[in-house]
Amino acid sequence: MVMYDVVIIGKGPAGLTAGIFSVRRGLKTLVLGNPAELSQMTEAHWVDNYPGILDVTGPQIMKKLEDHAKRMKLEMKDDEVTEVLRSGKHFTVKCDKGKYEGRTLIIATGSKHRKANIKGEAEFSGKGVSYCANCDGPLFKGRKVLVVGGGDAALGAALMLESIGADVTIIHRRDEFRGIESLRNRIKKSGVKVMWNTIPVGIEGDKMVKSIVVKDVKTKKDTEVPVDGVFIEIGSVPISELAKKLKIKVNERGFIIVDKEMKTNVEGVFAAGDCTNGPLKQMVTACGDGAIASTSAYIHIKEKD
Amino acid sequence: MVMYDVVIIGKGPAGLTAGIFSVRRGLKTLVLGNPAELSQMTEAHWVDNYPGILDVTGPQIMKKLEDHAKRMKLEMKDDEVTEVLRSGKHFTVKCDKGKYEGRTLIIATGSKHRKANIKGEAEFSGKGVSYCANCDGPLFKGRKVLVVGGGDAALGAALMLESIGADVTIIHRRDEFRGIESLRNRIKKSGVKVMWNTIPVGIEGDKMVKSIVVKDVKTKKDTEVPVDGVFIEIGSVPISELAKKLKIKVNERGFIIVDKEMKTNVEGVFAAGDCTNGPLKQMVTACGDGAIASTSAYIHIKEKD
Repeated sequence: MVMYDVVIIGKGPAGLTAGIFSVRRGLKTLVLGNPAELSQMTEAHWVDNYPGILDVTGPQIMKKLEDHAKRMKLEMKDDEVTEVLRSGKHFTVKCDKGKYEGRTLIIATGSKHRKANIKGEAEFSGKGVSYCANCDGPLFKGRKVLVVGGGDAALGAALMLESIGADVTIIHRRDEFRGIESLRNRIKKSGVKVMWNTIPVGIEGDKMVKSIVVKDVKTKKDTEVPVDGVFIEIGSVPISELAKKLKIKVNERGFIIVDKEMKTNVEGVFAAGDCTNGPLKQMVTACGDGAIASTSAYIHIKEKD
Repeated sequence: MVMYDVVIIGKGPAGLTAGIFSVRRGLKTLVLGNPAELSQMTEAHWVDNYPGILDVTGPQIMKKLEDHAKRMKLEMKDDEVTEVLRSGKHFTVKCDKGKYEGRTLIIATGSKHRKANIKGEAEFSGKGVSYCANCDGPLFKGRKVLVVGGGDAALGAALMLESIGADVTIIHRRDEFRGIESLRNRIKKSGVKVMWNTIPVGIEGDKMVKSIVVKDVKTKKDTEVPVDGVFIEIGSVPISELAKKLKIKVNERGFIIVDKEMKTNVEGVFAAGDCTNGPLKQMVTACGDGAIASTSAYIHIKEKD
């Protein structure tokens, strides 16, 4: 079996950047992307905070990164990792289709949408309940939707849904949004209705969503709001199950603990991007992480040679 | 006087990204660029390690970042900072042309070329001695040049000089280059001559450089090599004098000590990019740093409001 210097798990901004940097350093590198769990970047409606690239959607900017990686002759496979084992001084990465050996590992598995954990949420997922306004928004043109959340993702989703012609209400458990100033201002100027101090309780319907029951946390009063769609935009949870099985330390929210050099507590294993406990989850910081993780893997390998 | 939320010192990748992120968060932001000390990125001959952007020179990619910042309506001034003072709870930034007040400060002053500190170096600087192959290389077409160094910058400079038609020798104090595999391989395949275990001793000439005396560190023998140009590519030193005057802690090499959130030891002051003690000095990591520094400044301001 081929022994890779670096096996990178995850094909988002962190994984691809780690790959590009590893190939440039002459390391034999493999990037494994899970075809069933694409980078959250692929859901971004509009990206204007990756310096130097403007006027692109999430899928377009990810295509640019993948094209860059291809030009660098980075080997990439779409294969879902099912298990990672330590085999002496290296690692065996078992996948759906193949099995790979690596001297070092970079975990760049990203994060996924947090669930609201309310009645009807699972039942109506894909039947009016969505975690991705950009993916599913266009289905709701001219219809009534409710967005749950108060951060950037929720505000962005609400604006995006309004712009495609939906009738949008946003509910937030506090009396102020957490999202950035510019988005808050845009919400104020928009036709998006806001229900403050309000949490979701349950989703009702038959074949499709028909309404959502929400609770005013101050008055404790429940209200049933007729809607065609519910967009749940309440943050992310890290994809770190593989890491945990390798005895890699994670924090109380499940994010992989890394130091400034993107080292985990397990020798030879590095992590980068949204799955880590880094202070900011943005495309550009994920890319920076990937570059550092690759450099640390390179130093690790050269020290062992 | 206008009170800015954030004054950013430095207009390289770290400073511009910090600016873009600050403006997106609705912070009143000013970026000050020193017209006499441009980002080292402006000297890069060819950039292929900033994910998503290919086939560009250093000046071209910096133009993309600046255009991005302009589109975001980021206020930028070309003015050299001469002094930074704490004034109660904010900072006063004195410049060559103006004076500005900021509630927080982001230092993104970058780094500059390290000198070899040998006889004749200062005397012949700009008269055959150069620290920037990309800037001065074209003057040496068809002529004999010597490159001092063994890292990426030195190998890249040697290859670049050869590609424009110079007769290139590289001297390195060890018997192996520190630079990345791909560059080392390209050097091997190139016509660049290599003198191992060799250090520079002194530069000779009259109006212009005529020769360089080099020493073999094993035999201790000095040799005079006739050359028209000497390119000194032995790394960088941080630009951190302003920081030191503000009592910001730096490490033994002068790099500003920051934590994962890009905080310095002085409240309200953050730092990003090549002037910090980060583990990797690359454009993409500088950008990541800038995004984090901006977020930390934002959190600091919101906590004080």
